[in-house]
Amino acid sequence: MNKIGKQTIKLDMAPSILETASIVGPKEAQGPLAKYFDKCLDDEFWGESTWEKAESKIIKETVNTVINKSGIPSNKIDYCFAGDLLNQCISSSFGLRELGVPFFGIFGACSTYVEGMALASILLSSGAGEYALYAASSHFCSAEKQFRFPLELGNQRPPTSQWTVTGSGAGILAKNGSGPYVTYITPGKVVDMGIKDANNMGAAMAPAALDTLITHFTDTGRNPSYYDAIFTGDLGYVGKEILIELAQTKGYNIKSNYNDCGVLIFDKENQDTHSGGSGCACCGSVFSGYIFNQMKTKKYKKVLLIATGALTNSTTVQQGESIPGIAHAVSIEI
Amino acid sequence: MNKIGKQTIKLDMAPSILETASIVGPKEAQGPLAKYFDKCLDDEFWGESTWEKAESKIIKETVNTVINKSGIPSNKIDYCFAGDLLNQCISSSFGLRELGVPFFGIFGACSTYVEGMALASILLSSGAGEYALYAASSHFCSAEKQFRFPLELGNQRPPTSQWTVTGSGAGILAKNGSGPYVTYITPGKVVDMGIKDANNMGAAMAPAALDTLITHFTDTGRNPSYYDAIFTGDLGYVGKEILIELAQTKGYNIKSNYNDCGVLIFDKENQDTHSGGSGCACCGSVFSGYIFNQMKTKKYKKVLLIATGALTNSTTVQQGESIPGIAHAVSIEI
Repeated sequence: MNKIGKQTIKLDMAPSILETASIVGPKEAQGPLAKYFDKCLDDEFWGESTWEKAESKIIKETVNTVINKSGIPSNKIDYCFAGDLLNQCISSSFGLRELGVPFFGIFGACSTYVEGMALASILLSSGAGEYALYAASSHFCSAEKQFRFPLELGNQRPPTSQWTVTGSGAGILAKNGSGPYVTYITPGKVVDMGIKDANNMGAAMAPAALDTLITHFTDTGRNPSYYDAIFTGDLGYVGKEILIELAQTKGYNIKSNYNDCGVLIFDKENQDTHSGGSGCACCGSVFSGYIFNQMKTKKYKKVLLIATGALTNSTTVQQGESIPGIAHAVSIEI
Repeated sequence: MNKIGKQTIKLDMAPSILETASIVGPKEAQGPLAKYFDKCLDDEFWGESTWEKAESKIIKETVNTVINKSGIPSNKIDYCFAGDLLNQCISSSFGLRELGVPFFGIFGACSTYVEGMALASILLSSGAGEYALYAASSHFCSAEKQFRFPLELGNQRPPTSQWTVTGSGAGILAKNGSGPYVTYITPGKVVDMGIKDANNMGAAMAPAALDTLITHFTDTGRNPSYYDAIFTGDLGYVGKEILIELAQTKGYNIKSNYNDCGVLIFDKENQDTHSGGSGCACCGSVFSGYIFNQMKTKKYKKVLLIATGALTNSTTVQQGESIPGIAHAVSIEI
C-alpha cells in the first residue's frame, strides 16, 4: 500500500467486496430501486417500540444478511467498522453488540458507509486480517426527531430539503477474492464554505465532494471518462447540479456518467421527497443494492463512489454555525 | 503487519509516537497531574460563548500545540483521526475544520483516543503515509448538559458517578522514529453485561476492559508483569476494583502495576469527583501529559494502555436499555 499524490491511497493488494446487503423502509420500497434491496419493510417500526430500536434492528439484520449471503461465519470476520447518524452512534453499537467481532465505531455523517469501506480495505490490504465487515444505517423518523422537528408536527419542508433514507447497507470485504476490488481510496478533508441552511445539505456538502473528486483525479492521473459511473452519496438534486457546475469550472465534465444515490433512490415526481434521499443508508443501500448488482453483472466495471457527509448537529445550527462537509471516495473496479 | 491470536495486530514496522499534547480545564488544573499538561485553563469557557464552542477550541488548540511541538507542519500530516462525546462528534469536526488534513471521524465514546491512535498506527505501518495525527476531547459542562441534567440544577451525584474531564489529548505518529513505538493493537469487541445504571459507567465498562485485557495477554503470550505499567482509560475507582477482581478470577494478577487514568487525574479526597475522571479527554490528557512523559524519561518502558468506552446515550437510557461497553488496547514500548 502506498500514498500517491496529495491524499490518495493505492491498494496494491486490493481487497474484494465479497458480498453486500441492504434492508430499507416502506418509502424506499416504493422507489425505483426497490427490486435491488434484500428486504423492504412494511412499516418504520419493524415490530419494535421505538424508531431507535427499529434502526438498530435494521442494521443488525442487514449485517446478518450479508454474513449469510457471503457464507463467512462471524467468527471468521476480523474487524467491523460501523456508524450511523444517531447521537453516539447507538444504532450501530446496540445493533451489533452481539456480533462478537472487534468493533471500530466511526462517524462521518452520511459519508460513514464509504469511510467504513475505506478503513476496512486498508486493514485487509495491510495484512491484518482476512475478512472485514462495514455497515451504516439511518432512519427517517429517528433522524427527523433528532435533527429537526417531531414528526407529529407535520412540518413543511422546503424544496432544497432531503429525505433521510430508512435502511442500512453493509458489505464484507475479503483480502483475497475475485472482485470487485477496492483499488484506490481518497479520504476527504473537512470543507466548510459557510453554508448555514440546515435545509440545504446538498449545497453544504457539494464543495467537499468537489475537493475529493478533483483530488482523486489529480492524484491518480485519471479523468471522469476513466469510470463507467461516478456516484456521490447524497447530494440530492440541488447538490448534484452544484457539483456538476463546480467540476466544470475546474475543467472536468462529469455530466455524462455521474449520478447521485439520493437522486436515484426516490421518484421525485411521485414521492414528495424534494431534493432526494440522504442519510448513511442512502449511499449504503444504493451501493449495496443497486450499484453492486450492476458491477456483479458487469454493467459497470469501474465505479468511483464518493460518499458525502454534513458534520453538523442541531446544537451547532442553533448556535449559528455553518455546516462543514466531508467526502470520502473509493475506486471500485472489476 | 499481521494478526496474531484471536484479535491482536502486531505492527512489524511499528510507528513512533513523535509527540503528544494536552490542554485541560480548571478542575484538572487543581488535580495531581497538573504539571504534566501543556496548558491549564482558568475557566470552562475559554473566551467562547458556549461550552460546545469551548470544547472545539480546546481540541483545535491541542492539535495546534502537538503540531508545534513536533515540528511537523500540517501539510506533511497524511491523516487525522478524531472524535469526541458530543452528538455527531461536533467538537472534532468544528475544531479541526481548518486543519486541511484528510479526516477520519471516529466514535468509541471514551475509548476514542486509543481507537484513533490504533487506526493511525495501522495506516502508517501499512505504508500509506509518513505522519498521522489523532485527537479526542471531552468537556464536563457540555457532557453534563447533553447526557444528564442542566448544570444549573445542581443535581446530586451518587458515589459511583464519574466526573467528565474537560480537555483534549492529541498525538502525532511517525512511520519512522525513535519511539516510543506502538507495537501491538488489540481492538475490542462490544461487551454488554446488562448494567443499566448510567451513574455507574465503571461497572458497565469493566467487563469490556477485562475481555480486551485477557485477549491481549492470550494473543501475545504476555502476562501482566511484562509491562511496567497497565492503564485503563476511565474505569474510575469502582471500575478499577471490578477489573482487578475479574482479572484475578481469570488467573491474572494486575494489582501491582495497574492503574486507571480516571483515578490518577483527580484528588479523590479534596476534589469531590466521586469515582474519578471519565470522558475521551481522561485517557487522552493523562496519556498525552503524564504517561508519555514517564515514557520519554524512561520511567516506563513498556506500557499497556486500554481505553474504555460506554456506547450509550440519553435516549437509550430513557428507553430502558443496558449499557454496552468497549475497550481498545495498545502496547507502547521503548
